[in-house]
Amino acid sequence: MGGKLIVFEGVEGCGKTSQMQLCSEWLENLGVSVVVTREPGGTELGSHLRRLLLEKAEDKPVAEVTELLLYAADRSQHIEQELKPNLAAGKYILCDRYTDSTIAYQGYGRGLNMSLINQLNYIATGGLESDLTIWLDVDVEVGLSRKLLDNVGLDRIEQETIAFHRRVQQGYAHLAASHPSRIVRVDGSLSQEAVQQVIQEILRVHLKELP
Amino acid sequence: MGGKLIVFEGVEGCGKTSQMQLCSEWLENLGVSVVVTREPGGTELGSHLRRLLLEKAEDKPVAEVTELLLYAADRSQHIEQELKPNLAAGKYILCDRYTDSTIAYQGYGRGLNMSLINQLNYIATGGLESDLTIWLDVDVEVGLSRKLLDNVGLDRIEQETIAFHRRVQQGYAHLAASHPSRIVRVDGSLSQEAVQQVIQEILRVHLKELP
Ligand SMILES: Nc1ncnc2c1ncn2[C@@H]1O[C@H](COP(=O)(O)OP(=O)(O)O)[C@@H](O)[C@H]1O
Ligand SMILES: Nc1ncnc2c1ncn2[C@@H]1O[C@H](COP(=O)(O)OP(=O)(O)O)[C@@H](O)[C@H]1O
Ligand SMILES: [Mg+2]
Ligand SMILES: [Mg+2]
Repeated sequence: MGGKLIVFEGVEGCGKTSQMQLCSEWLENLGVSVVVTREPGGTELGSHLRRLLLEKAEDKPVAEVTELLLYAADRSQHIEQELKPNLAAGKYILCDRYTDSTIAYQGYGRGLNMSLINQLNYIATGGLESDLTIWLDVDVEVGLSRKLLDNVGLDRIEQETIAFHRRVQQGYAHLAASHPSRIVRVDGSLSQEAVQQVIQEILRVHLKELP
Repeated sequence: MGGKLIVFEGVEGCGKTSQMQLCSEWLENLGVSVVVTREPGGTELGSHLRRLLLEKAEDKPVAEVTELLLYAADRSQHIEQELKPNLAAGKYILCDRYTDSTIAYQGYGRGLNMSLINQLNYIATGGLESDLTIWLDVDVEVGLSRKLLDNVGLDRIEQETIAFHRRVQQGYAHLAASHPSRIVRVDGSLSQEAVQQVIQEILRVHLKELP
């Protein structure tokens, strides 16, 4: 059985972390060897880069191109150190965010140069795409209110406007329309159990080799 | 008088630091406003990145593409934070290494993907080239023996073989041949005073506006 890269995407609070956890338990019960990871920050180097990006920002702001290059560096390291070895070992990798997040957040959300983003995504990945990307589609308000109730991770969310999150959401809609065989939209407004059922069916259809 | 970007290039011990110092004193005596800087590590972010690149290396080596992306991030930050504002302010910038070093060291020296290097140089600089690049050409043995006598910076030199430094030297020769109007070769084996005389003459010819 070959390794698979399964990516979870969507706006804040869409349910990525919860669904990845449920999915990993389900796959492990089927006897599949699973790795759960995330971008950015999925490697030690990446966590240093993330800190650099967050720490700065006051007197000497990180330039836009620099920021995109650092995210790309995080990604290429994650791919070489985590994704490729685990794929080669036949693992199922569940990854929290990947190239589509850069397009949705930096591209659609912040309006950074899209052709540069695509170029850097290609440089960082060398063309390694997900086998399947699950887009958990919820209204921005639903996702954000879930996060607000959580009382976690408010910092990052509060920094951006609702309008920003709507642009990100639009970005995902465009991406899903452009890559219908790679990106599958799942209605993330259903109950956690219902969403998980749908994800399991999709994995069964797309990854025919599942036990 | 407009700002100018003057880059000093060459193998270890060719005399960049000494000549930049002399050149900066000469220009200041002429009443020119000078900034001396370097790559990599010319910004605070850059010095963090440099440390990250040097610290790692044991158990989880930094991937090649990651390394090139981090050098490019250092460069783009240096350009946005130092080079562009100082050029806009009409300063003469003397810069210790720039894009040609990446081509010579990572490309010719280490054999990393040259088209990726060129692509990343372009992304990082947005096409900002030096007004003039002084290549201090000395035999690898001469440069290295100067450094050995110095007893400084031996770490980095000892890590690479003589063959590596020869490939770097070849790289500079190719670059100079390909960019005859931007890169000027200076015989770095002359005395410090003689080299400085030649550099001053070159700057007078190339930067006609000098007082
Ligand atoms: N389908 C759902 N219905 C209601 N609440 C949910 C649902 N999925 C997740 N949540 C809750 O919303 C919050 C955010 O979910 P999380 O999985 O952390 O989202 P993400 O990782 O995409 O930001 C958590 O408190 C989680 O328990
Ligand atoms: N033209 C020269 N002749 C002899 N020694 C030199 C000459 N230029 C520099 N040096 C000496 O060689 C050493 C390396 O010079 P340096 O300017 O630090 O080179 P780089 O910065 O290119 O590595 C220093 O000790 C310096 O004093
Ligand atoms: Mg999460
Ligand atoms: Mg030096």
